[in-house]
Formats: sequence, structure tokens, C-alpha cells
Amino acid sequence: MAMMRAAVVRAFDQPLVIEERAIPQPGPGELLVRVIASGVCHTDLHAARGDWPVKPSLPFVPGHEAAGWVAVVGQGVKAFKEGDAVGVAWLHDACSHCEYCETGWETLCEQQHNTGYSVDGGYAEYVIAAADYVARLPPGSDFFALAPILCAGVTTYKGLKETEARPGEWVAISGIGGLGHVAVQYAKAMGLHVVALDTTDDKLALAKSLGADAAINVGTPDAVEQVVRLTGGGAHGVLVTAPSQPAFRQSIAMARRKGTVSLVGLPPGDFPTPIFDVVLKRVTVRGSIVGTRRDLDEAIAFAVEGKVRSSVTVDKLDNINAVFERLSAGHVEGRIVLSV
Amino acid sequence: MAMMRAAVVRAFDQPLVIEERAIPQPGPGELLVRVIASGVCHTDLHAARGDWPVKPSLPFVPGHEAAGWVAVVGQGVKAFKEGDAVGVAWLHDACSHCEYCETGWETLCEQQHNTGYSVDGGYAEYVIAAADYVARLPPGSDFFALAPILCAGVTTYKGLKETEARPGEWVAISGIGGLGHVAVQYAKAMGLHVVALDTTDDKLALAKSLGADAAINVGTPDAVEQVVRLTGGGAHGVLVTAPSQPAFRQSIAMARRKGTVSLVGLPPGDFPTPIFDVVLKRVTVRGSIVGTRRDLDEAIAFAVEGKVRSSVTVDKLDNINAVFERLSAGHVEGRIVLSV
Amino acid sequence: MAMMRAAVVRAFDQPLVIEERAIPQPGPGELLVRVIASGVCHTDLHAARGDWPVKPSLPFVPGHEAAGWVAVVGQGVKAFKEGDAVGVAWLHDACSHCEYCETGWETLCEQQHNTGYSVDGGYAEYVIAAADYVARLPPGSDFFALAPILCAGVTTYKGLKETEARPGEWVAISGIGGLGHVAVQYAKAMGLHVVALDTTDDKLALAKSLGADAAINVGTPDAVEQVVRLTGGGAHGVLVTAPSQPAFRQSIAMARRKGTVSLVGLPPGDFPTPIFDVVLKRVTVRGSIVGTRRDLDEAIAFAVEGKVRSSVTVDKLDNINAVFERLSAGHVEGRIVLSV
Amino acid sequence: MAMMRAAVVRAFDQPLVIEERAIPQPGPGELLVRVIASGVCHTDLHAARGDWPVKPSLPFVPGHEAAGWVAVVGQGVKAFKEGDAVGVAWLHDACSHCEYCETGWETLCEQQHNTGYSVDGGYAEYVIAAADYVARLPPGSDFFALAPILCAGVTTYKGLKETEARPGEWVAISGIGGLGHVAVQYAKAMGLHVVALDTTDDKLALAKSLGADAAINVGTPDAVEQVVRLTGGGAHGVLVTAPSQPAFRQSIAMARRKGTVSLVGLPPGDFPTPIFDVVLKRVTVRGSIVGTRRDLDEAIAFAVEGKVRSSVTVDKLDNINAVFERLSAGHVEGRIVLSV
Repeated sequence: MAMMRAAVVRAFDQPLVIEERAIPQPGPGELLVRVIASGVCHTDLHAARGDWPVKPSLPFVPGHEAAGWVAVVGQGVKAFKEGDAVGVAWLHDACSHCEYCETGWETLCEQQHNTGYSVDGGYAEYVIAAADYVARLPPGSDFFALAPILCAGVTTYKGLKETEARPGEWVAISGIGGLGHVAVQYAKAMGLHVVALDTTDDKLALAKSLGADAAINVGTPDAVEQVVRLTGGGAHGVLVTAPSQPAFRQSIAMARRKGTVSLVGLPPGDFPTPIFDVVLKRVTVRGSIVGTRRDLDEAIAFAVEGKVRSSVTVDKLDNINAVFERLSAGHVEGRIVLSV
Repeated sequence: MAMMRAAVVRAFDQPLVIEERAIPQPGPGELLVRVIASGVCHTDLHAARGDWPVKPSLPFVPGHEAAGWVAVVGQGVKAFKEGDAVGVAWLHDACSHCEYCETGWETLCEQQHNTGYSVDGGYAEYVIAAADYVARLPPGSDFFALAPILCAGVTTYKGLKETEARPGEWVAISGIGGLGHVAVQYAKAMGLHVVALDTTDDKLALAKSLGADAAINVGTPDAVEQVVRLTGGGAHGVLVTAPSQPAFRQSIAMARRKGTVSLVGLPPGDFPTPIFDVVLKRVTVRGSIVGTRRDLDEAIAFAVEGKVRSSVTVDKLDNINAVFERLSAGHVEGRIVLSV
Repeated sequence: MAMMRAAVVRAFDQPLVIEERAIPQPGPGELLVRVIASGVCHTDLHAARGDWPVKPSLPFVPGHEAAGWVAVVGQGVKAFKEGDAVGVAWLHDACSHCEYCETGWETLCEQQHNTGYSVDGGYAEYVIAAADYVARLPPGSDFFALAPILCAGVTTYKGLKETEARPGEWVAISGIGGLGHVAVQYAKAMGLHVVALDTTDDKLALAKSLGADAAINVGTPDAVEQVVRLTGGGAHGVLVTAPSQPAFRQSIAMARRKGTVSLVGLPPGDFPTPIFDVVLKRVTVRGSIVGTRRDLDEAIAFAVEGKVRSSVTVDKLDNINAVFERLSAGHVEGRIVLSV
Repeated sequence: MAMMRAAVVRAFDQPLVIEERAIPQPGPGELLVRVIASGVCHTDLHAARGDWPVKPSLPFVPGHEAAGWVAVVGQGVKAFKEGDAVGVAWLHDACSHCEYCETGWETLCEQQHNTGYSVDGGYAEYVIAAADYVARLPPGSDFFALAPILCAGVTTYKGLKETEARPGEWVAISGIGGLGHVAVQYAKAMGLHVVALDTTDDKLALAKSLGADAAINVGTPDAVEQVVRLTGGGAHGVLVTAPSQPAFRQSIAMARRKGTVSLVGLPPGDFPTPIFDVVLKRVTVRGSIVGTRRDLDEAIAFAVEGKVRSSVTVDKLDNINAVFERLSAGHVEGRIVLSV
């Protein structure tokens, strides 16, 4: 039986174990993908710790930003052939016939499986993908550059779309980390004006270098007033990449009348919404979770064109536990991608 | 000088004074309206008490559901003539050239004046209206039936539009009071399925008699589950007519994936929003305030066609203080309209 | 080998042959459906005559309004079981991963197969369906009542949605035949005002009896002016169920400024569009073809609720050639459904 | 009485007369504008020739791209003061209370007046503007650069918006003349991919130099196929800046399934629409006329930011007849702006 190396969660909140496992075989409609590059996302940390109410079944392989090429084509699959470049993202598969699947909102399907969570993911030499849900990458892709687009990219791109801001309007992007630094670039490619918000001057400088029209330190007492003044009344869209209670409150205060606050990320707990402001300003607050296959195709196209580039540090699969420690401590700039 | 009777707030949180006042004269672009029927809204109570951060200047005449006919036409007004039936609503006038006025969202104009708040309102025999903002009523209108449409009607109609629910879909209407009992009728006229929510069985019975497809007592422990089951996954739209912390929380739990919660009404304070649910279900939470002139025209058209009817009790202008007491105590069914 | 009766086109523009054929076997992801009721659509006539540029391969079984129950469940199908009530419509299956399939517009998929055209259809005791594309009908459905909804129903419902007319607005429905008489009912259920247009007074009377607010004979010289006057400036939406050159020209003249003309049906040839009117009135002209699975589910739900009912005449499968003759001669009121 | 120079149409299809006229006085709500730069549009030629069904009343002053500063402020105007930089565009004023004015579509108001057509325009040292409809320009504006934005700019910007193409999608721009060369720049600023279409290689080269991703000579026999191939299935939006029968037909053939063809410009006559294609591809064909005040503000903002620049040749007001001859003969590149 052919074997592969994989990083496996055997117990929550314990170090991952690098082990030999049998290479899985693709069923009908599936692909076996040889993983070359595998991005590390905060969600993987949550998964490995068992942080969320519905936990993965142990043991499992995390990872949902896996880029590589098709090694084996399952029965009945016509759209892919061996050697095609593909990406395996968070949405592993969905039911294909519920009201969400039927209307291009498969990310809301209640029967969906998630890569690296409810099915084994990309921290391994091989991963199974569903042919109808895998992302096609162009031949000759730089897998390390594209891996983070599979989650960080599409999540921020979709979140920006969900603000409904139009070219020429302003978006405020709150948090210039792994998600935010990519979001700035998508927003510029979409013809938006961007004001970047963070508490760290280094990250604000990074945002400016990536094209942000302005950058404001939200630790400044009058940060909200600065945004309102700069944008002539508030931002049309606000993307909150790392919702915290203060960030959430500020995002509503910075929103223009009729503006939309789009929330990505999954912090626990309740956030206080000031109803008076939301009603009088007709503010829309909206959650957004990853992106559909179509969003993903679009997000990839922007990256392939060179308009969006994630800042990537490559590390080895074997170092995953050290990587998790750095991520957990907040010592990661941009995105770490594992070489598998 | 010609005089009129008016109910005047001379001091906050004190009884209104019925007094003789000079009939005002319309300036250019204005109309003098002879008020026949004047609806009483909770907002009038808030105004008279000085409840909100920005208070009216004393003394002032409350009232923003004034129906009557044009008595004097101001200079330059071509669209109206003496004797035309009109309604004077909350949005007294706006600047006409800001980004909101230019795009049909004059309810968000920062320069707007509000009838019965920043300018004198309809608790009087005459009121000034701005010709470009007054609502046209059909000749021979029943002013007592239409008065509540000018605020309660348009507010709920707009709130329902803001849920973006389409014909055949489900809306949950939370609170079957002065606003909710009208909302049920608008929702049915818009081709929606309606589940009415209240804590009082009488009001639920009223909702059913007005066409609600279902009515559920939100005091029942499994009320949320009942709504989710009935609607096959949650309501596409939820209209919260009287936001309270529990109503707000329930509204998010009852919303279908990709559903919208529309909030009308202006309670003080912050409401806890469960971010995890909002993000994973991609729920939209949106405030809505009265409605634009176009919304108002549409809301009136539904009422004139007989598809929506507010439950009205007529009282005398002189009794306003007693009416306020009943309203304050929650002893009002439907809407009280003053005969002026 | 089990056999079934079927009406087969062996040569274009020749009578169909009623013959015994082997009952087909469902492949993976497919269902074998026992057809009970099978609607007859003009498209079937076009198919049997080979009228369109891309013709069916001979021999074939027409029919794409087939209602019945699941007889055999193919491999891998989990969403259906034997005995479930289903409908097989024009969109037999699509590729599931093109940009249209991914966004809920599978009706535009370039790889789609069409029932009774590129694959065998419902003029037979059994038909193969794709599980992901078949319509679910409620248990105990009246198959004869629902069969026409599978094409005539969804086509007009979708066409009305594509006008973007909102509850309270006006739609003009041009042609009160097999499609139009259903369209009137959908429009009313959607909260729209309806003016029915036809050249025959009987059909106008039918439209009124089905709820149309007004009915105007388009043979009258001032028909366009009547519609414009009635609707206060033109219809917000115009649904042209049987495009002919005069109907098309009238539809643009009857459209309100900013209105939308939605075209269903597939007449040959070019139609003259008056550019001056289209530009100055900002009219939108849009084609619409059947409806997606979601549209179909919604269209069925309106019918199941009793809000829409097609006028049906039942005939025998054996009489198909006589039925085609009557249809061809324009001697059919409402819809003929074959008892299979 | 103070006098000014103006170019006046005294008879249709005759040379304009440069004459001295009394400077008009602004009424209530109006501004007197000192014109510095005045763009020359094809519409001015149509007006001077009396080409269209509803003709201007003789004599009149053409011109609807007038940029300059406020010389006198009429009674009641608060939003402007003497010396403010402004632009006077085609939409001189509208009724402010019809359904179009109330919803941000004042370009469809049936009571509108048009500058240089139903009221005197900008081929003069002074022009009257309505304060609520004039465009605000930034202090220190280059009036010669901005004048063409007032019509050519906003018309193409709005036409692009009306295609509903989103950032990352493809638009085809048909005709790279006075409108098209500006359209290319707006499209790029809006994050769109652009394929430019013309019959002249010089203009295609110009389009490329302005940022078009591709340029195709529509005289080439396989031009349509080239566009379809390049865009992976057809353009999401097609902007036809100079509708001719062949351009119109090509635009539909080049449109992607579910794409939108947006028509600006007002050629006479009917254009043949292939219904089969429009229905099966679900193509939308839509007229677009100038733009609203809000569109104009946005169009100006792009130009002020330097993202869009019209190619301008300055000439003298006295030379207007020679300018008209060159325009009529098709010998004008970009836009001619009169120095007044």
C-alpha cells in the first residue's frame, strides 16, 4: 500500500504528529491531489484545539489551502485529468440540490463538508478533493503564491463584495494581518478607495505600500472622526477582518449612512450593536463566510493577473508545531505556506 | 390675525397645553394645510418627554401623521392647488442636493427637518408642509383611515422592503401592535407568507384575522424552533417592530441562512449580536427609518386600494394628554387618530 | 426485457409512432420515473418538426412536462426514494461546474441536455431523470394539474421575475394563451397589478376571471394609449408570451420609463427595436428561457398552494397526433395533458 | 444693460450667428454662470439642424458642457456662492417630485429642461443654471479638461454602470471616438477588462494607449469570434457608443450569456434584434441617456483624481461654424472645447 506523510491531530490542543498514512483513493466524482503547497490559516489552529462548538472527529489532518496537481482521477470525472493544477479549499463539497446549492450560495449548504475539519485536509502529501468543488489553477501556477488565495484571498474578496461598495467609493479595512493585507489589494483592483486601519504602524505602512489611499492608527483617540472626514461622511463599506468588540463598534461608527459593515472571521461571543445608530443611519451589518466556487475563481483570477499577491513565508510540513506556536503568539506577518 | 387651536409642548415631560396660536403663513415652496385627522405615534411621546439625545426646541407642536387639505398655496408651488388632499409626514423637508437626496434616500439627508419635532407638527388645526415633500392623497380620501399610513404604514412597508423577501417567501413580524398589525397586511399584499409573533394571544388572533399564515407566541419556550420548522429553515425576512433585547436575539435565531433582519423603532442602548451565527448563516441586520416619498406614495396606494387598513380609534385633540397616558401605559390597540 | 409504450418521432414533420420500447435503466445519479401525466407544449411541436437550427437526433421521444413517481433509484442517489412524486422538466441536466451552473443560472449552461429534445422525454410510460435536476412534488400531488407548471408555469413565473416589477406595480401580459393565462395568476400572487392583452375577447374575459385588473384588446387602435393611461405612464414590466413583430413593438411602446420588457418564446427572425425610445425611456429588453431549478421549486409552490392553476384538458397518449394538429391549428385553450 | 457674446441658432441647418445678447438674470433657485470652457457635442449639431422629432424653439444658444464659475447667485440659493466652480450639463432642471425625480432617476423626468436645447446653453459668455442641478467642480479646476466630462464623461460612465459588469469582468466598447476613448478609461478605473472595437487602427492604438487590454478591428470578418475567444465566452457588458445597425447586431453576438448591451447615442430608426439569441442567451439590451446628478458627481470625481482624461482640442467660440463642419465630416479626434 502506498504511503504518504501527513500532520495529524490525534488529540485536541496537543502537538500534531507527523506520521505515515495510506494514500487515500478517490471515489466516484473525486480527485486525488498531490499537495505541493499548503497554507496555514488561523482556522487550522482553532480546529486543532477543538475551539468551536462542533468539533472535528479525531484523528484528522488539518489544512484547507492546498495547491498541487491531480494525481488520480476518480470514476465519472470528466472535467479534470491527471496533472491539472488545482486548489483544495475550505468548502470540500456540498449537497448540490438544496436552495443554497441551487442558487450559487453553496457556502451556506447545511450538508457541506469542510476540508481539514470534517474531512482530511492539506497538511499531507495527498488530499482527496471533490471534482465539482475543486478550484482550477492555470498550468504552471506558483502554488506557494496561490495557496493563501484559496482561503485568505477568497474570504476577503467575498467580504468586500458583500459590502456592495462600488468603484470610486471608500472601504475601510480593519486589521492589516494575513487577511487584511490581501484585502487592501483586492479593494484597489476593484476600483475602490481604501483606508487601512490597524493598531500597528508597521502594518499601516505595509497597507500604504500595497496601495491603500490612507492608513489610520485606530489607537488614536479620534480615529473614527479621521475616517469620517477623510471619506466625506464615512466609508461606504467596512470590512472587519478580525472582529473584536472595539473593532466592531468602531466599524459601525465609521460606516457612512446607508453603508455596509461586512464581518469575516469567527470570534466567540456577542457584540454590542448600537441600535439607534444602525436605524438612523440605515447601516447594514452582514456576516460573510469564505466564498463560493465562483467567488474563488474570481479571486484566483485577480491573483493570476498579478493584481493581488499574498506575502508568503515558506516553511516545512515537519515544522507545523513551531508554526502554530508562532501563529498563536501573533508573530506571523502575512501567510505561512507549508512545503509538502 | 387668524388664530388656530394647537396642542403645544411647553416643557418636557409636562402635559401639553391646548392654546390659540396664529395660523402660520406658507413661504415659497410651502403649503398651509388644514389638518382634519392627526395620528398619534410613540415618537410624539418621546418628543414631548425629550427622551432622545437631540431634543426639539421648546415650545413646539408634535404630530407627524397629519391628513387634510391644502388651505393656502405658497409662492412658486405648481404641483398643488387649494383643496387638494394631502398628508404631512415625519420627513418635513430635506436639502434636495446631497448624495442621499440625489439618489432617492432623502430619509438619510443630514439637513432634514422633521414634522412635530424640529418644525411644528400636526396636533393643530393648521400645519405648514413643504410642497416637494408632502404626500398627495386621492380626492375624497378618508383622512382618519389614511393618517396612520403616513408613519406606521410607510415605516412597516419600507421595513418589509428592506428585508428583500420576495413573493412566496416567509417573513416573521415581531410585535403585533400599532406597527405590526399594519405590517401583516402589507406583507400579505406583497405576496409574502407571514408568521406573526407576539407575547399576547389577543394580538396573535388579530394577526390571523388580518391574514397572517401563522401566529406564534414568543413566550413559548420553543418559539424559535417553531418558526424554523414552519418556514422550512427560518424566515427569509424578519421585521422587528419593537426591538427589545430578547426580540432582537430571537430575530437572528429565526432568520433563515442568507436572511435579513430589519429593525424599525428606536430603543436606546446596545443589542448583543451573536457574531458566530451572523457569519456562519450570512445573516444581514439592517436598520430602517420611516420611508422615502416614493415609499410613502406606494404605502398610500396599498391603503387606498383597500389592501391595508389601520385599526383606528378617533379621539379629540383636547384629549391629547389622556391619550398620551393610555399610550404610555400600553393600553392602546391599533392607532389613535385625533380629530382636529 | 420490460417494455413500455412511447410516442416516438421517427422522421421530422411526420406523425409520431406509438410503439413498444424497452424501459430504460437509470445510471448513477439518475432516476427512472413512471410518467402519469405529460403536458404538451408548443416546443414539442417544434421538436417533432425539426423547426430549429439545432435538431434532435432521430428517433426520439418528445415531452418535457412529465409528472409521476420514482420507479427506480440509480446508484448514488440519496435525495429520492422509490415512490417519491417528481416532475421532469425541459432542463434535463447541466454540467454543474460552469460559471452558470455555479451561480444558479444552469439554464444557460452550454452543456445542458433537454428533455424530449436531446434526451428522450415524457411522451412515454417511463422517462429517465437526473436526480440533481428533477423537481420534487408533494406527496399526493395532482399530476395532471402540476404537469403544465413544469414548463408553462415556470417559464412565465421566471419571465415575470425578470421584469423586476415589484408588488404594487403594473405588468402587462401580452398573449393570454397556454402561457399567458398562467402568467396572470402568478402576477397576481406576486402582488402585481395586471393588464391582460390579447386580440380575442374570450381570452380577455378569461384573464379577468383569473384576476387581471384590466384587459385590453390590442386590436383596438389606441390600445397602447389605453395601457399608458391605465397604468399612469406605462407598465413597469411587460411579459411577451408570444413574441410577434407587432406584439414586440407594442410592448416597448407600453413600457414605462425605466420599465422592462421580458420575452419568452422562440419565434424565428429579427424584431425591429426603436432605439430612440429605448434610449430616451431607458427601457430594458430581456430574453428569458424556462427557469432554474429554484425558479421551478418556487413556481410549483405557488401552484401547490392553489394560487395558480393551469386550465387543463386531458387526452390519451395514443391521440398525440390529433393533439398536435389541434395545437398547430391554434384550437387549444389552456393546456393539453396526456394521460400516460 | 450688460451684454455678452453668444453663438445663436436662428434657423435650422444654417450657420450659427455670433451676436451680442443681454446677460440673463438668475431667478429664484438659479445661478448665473460665467462660462470659460464649453464642449462641443454631436447633440449640438443635431439641435442646430433640427434633426430630432421635438425641436428647440428658435432662436436658441446650444451647448451643454459648460464649465466656469458662479457670477450671480439667485434668490434662495444657499449651496453656492459667487466664484464657485461649476459645470452646466444637459439636464438643466427637472420637476423634483415625479416618481423619477423622487428615486434618483431625474434623467427620466418628463418635465425636464435641457441645456442648449429647451433652454439656452453654453455657447455664450454666460448661462443660467438651476442650483439644484448644477455640478460642483473643485476649486482651481481645469475647465477645459472637465468640460467634456459633463456630457461625454457622464454618458459613458453611466452606460458602463448600466452594463452591470463587475470588477474583473469584460466589457467591449464599440466605437473609440469622443465617447469611446473616455469610456475605455472609466472602464479601467472601474476594475474592468476592456476590449476596444473600432474600424480604424489609429483609434484602436489610442484605446490601447489608454489602457484597453485588447483592441480588435470590427472590420475583420471574424471580429465577433475573436471577442468571444478573448473573453472566454463573450463580454459581460457591451457599450455601444455609436449605434449603427451592424454595431448593434455585433454587440448582441459578442455579449456573453446573461450579458448586457448598453446603448448610448440617439441614431434614428429601428434596429433588428435577433430574438432567438436574446432569449436563449438571456441577453439584456438597455438604453442609457446621459446620467443623473449623482452619476455626474462620480464621473467628475474620477476625472479630478486623474483617472480619466478627455483628449481635448481648444478652439474659439467665433469658430463654431468651422468646428461644426469638421465634426460633421468626422474629422474630430477626441473632443473640441470652445474657449469663451
